[in-house]
Amino acid sequence: MVENNHSTDSTGEFQRSLSHFDDRILADPNAQWPVEPGRYRLVVSLACPWAHRMLIVRRLLGLESSISVGVTDPVQDERSWRFTLDPDDVDPVLGIGFIGDAYYAREPDYRGGISVPAIVDIPSGELVTNDYLQMTLDLSTEWGGFHRDGAPDLYPVALRPEIDEVIGLVFRDVNNGVYRSGFAAAQDKYDRAYNGLFNRLDWLEERLTGRRYLVGDTITEADIRLFTTLVRFDPVYHGHFKCNRNKLTEMPALWAYARDLYQTPGFTDTVNFDHIKRHYYQVHTDINPTKIVPLGPDLTNWDTPHGREALGGRPFGDGTPPPAPPEAEVFADWRL
Amino acid sequence: MVENNHSTDSTGEFQRSLSHFDDRILADPNAQWPVEPGRYRLVVSLACPWAHRMLIVRRLLGLESSISVGVTDPVQDERSWRFTLDPDDVDPVLGIGFIGDAYYAREPDYRGGISVPAIVDIPSGELVTNDYLQMTLDLSTEWGGFHRDGAPDLYPVALRPEIDEVIGLVFRDVNNGVYRSGFAAAQDKYDRAYNGLFNRLDWLEERLTGRRYLVGDTITEADIRLFTTLVRFDPVYHGHFKCNRNKLTEMPALWAYARDLYQTPGFTDTVNFDHIKRHYYQVHTDINPTKIVPLGPDLTNWDTPHGREALGGRPFGDGTPPPAPPEAEVFADWRL
Repeated sequence: MVENNHSTDSTGEFQRSLSHFDDRILADPNAQWPVEPGRYRLVVSLACPWAHRMLIVRRLLGLESSISVGVTDPVQDERSWRFTLDPDDVDPVLGIGFIGDAYYAREPDYRGGISVPAIVDIPSGELVTNDYLQMTLDLSTEWGGFHRDGAPDLYPVALRPEIDEVIGLVFRDVNNGVYRSGFAAAQDKYDRAYNGLFNRLDWLEERLTGRRYLVGDTITEADIRLFTTLVRFDPVYHGHFKCNRNKLTEMPALWAYARDLYQTPGFTDTVNFDHIKRHYYQVHTDINPTKIVPLGPDLTNWDTPHGREALGGRPFGDGTPPPAPPEAEVFADWRL
Repeated sequence: MVENNHSTDSTGEFQRSLSHFDDRILADPNAQWPVEPGRYRLVVSLACPWAHRMLIVRRLLGLESSISVGVTDPVQDERSWRFTLDPDDVDPVLGIGFIGDAYYAREPDYRGGISVPAIVDIPSGELVTNDYLQMTLDLSTEWGGFHRDGAPDLYPVALRPEIDEVIGLVFRDVNNGVYRSGFAAAQDKYDRAYNGLFNRLDWLEERLTGRRYLVGDTITEADIRLFTTLVRFDPVYHGHFKCNRNKLTEMPALWAYARDLYQTPGFTDTVNFDHIKRHYYQVHTDINPTKIVPLGPDLTNWDTPHGREALGGRPFGDGTPPPAPPEAEVFADWRL
């Protein structure tokens, strides 16, 4: 989650900062950070849409045994994301209580925001990257040697121009648009974010009415990036961020599309509505001072048939669905 | 609006105070405050569900020329409800800038909350009553001599026990329940209010599935009291007060029932969604510090056919619909 990496400017507009640590882990064995199974630890919050992307991509590609994962408490304290879900409040692999400790190991004088997803070099304990925009792509393109048999191609070379265009629009208007709506401190900035968001959702609704996935006929990076915002829409963004022209459930194609992905192996077990709701409502005291977490909405409707198979499409292309995760990697609080 | 008459107690539970001024205007000519056309002025906010009841009852009974009405700004300042919508920011009949002035005319040392609806004795400028629970009933029972020809009986003697029972349950769980949900400062108090609210809405949904109105086969006081909460549900309570198990639009019978009433003469012209939204979102800075007013939800669906005629029922009983109001009394910001 990169909320620590943002501010609201003097005009009342939400501004998202760039990730400060943008090193990459590369297939080249001579790289500063070479691909190496067991060397790196991914740290996520199940609440965070940007970190959530990593969990899904990692699972679809079968990288669980190559890159281990640590999960933070959904509620940060003044030292940011913390490992209070682990025994003794310490990540068992990194031996630290806060992901911030890996930031300071890397750069002792660091004063910027602490965010997840973060990848840490286990031997040194240093942060490698918090560059959420590049990180998922590198799992597809740099870690190919360690993908499972039957791993799908989430970022096919031939489709990259179209995928990049779609994820750019979706980032600006949807992924980040909900934050620009929710954290606006001036009515005109909110209005602009809201209108941009719903115009883009209308565009997506139309695009997805006749086709099963955003680009091509298989699940790609573009779908994963849209999904992690859609799954938070009704539980959080609709009310908490005032994205309330309508609920996701009121947009038939988008709602069926979201359920289709949710019910796809590799997605379901990564969705933790409890972490999602507690994070947003308890951390953002600037917009929810009471910290009360709403009991709604009713989420059992994520189970309902979506009917999207009729549109064709091959979820995993020439690949296969991922196997069920080991029990320790079932992150869902609520099961199909 | 009686929000100034409330507090959140040490356990985090919302507590609504009793109205302080509970004098009644009576048909008895020897009463302290006798019924007398032209003598009293009703002061309302179009935002306020309790005041909204008075506007509807007054119109259905045809009391517009007997009791004039002043409308406050939907956004209070530190002196509470103010007449900033009127020329020179002064109510043209009462000659005051704040309804609080009538409270102090009545009781100079008054320190309690200032609320609407309020009825003021025009000759003395003194507040007569802010007792919103009694006020609407007295329009039906004490002002009978001045009802229009064809006025409906909104509080029929034979049905009063059933009406009183229903409005008691609806007050506790719905009318006041949404406030207890929204202003709860402790999770357990919120949870209890939310559960009470939705259990009661489920009960109402079932009750209204087979019958057109709450009690008997005509519109009564019970329907008016439920309506003014329902019409605010999706625009305000769903998000702002965290009443978000579902929207009103997701409860088929209640949603059709609300549209049926909304589209009934005497109701439509009293609904001002702009005042409603601005009031709640701009005044309650304890739960919406940014004062941003959401652009949603889409409200055009209030226009759609409701199909409730098929259930029978006689909206006005042996009476007739009210005529269209004079232009000065069209309070809606948005028209069918």
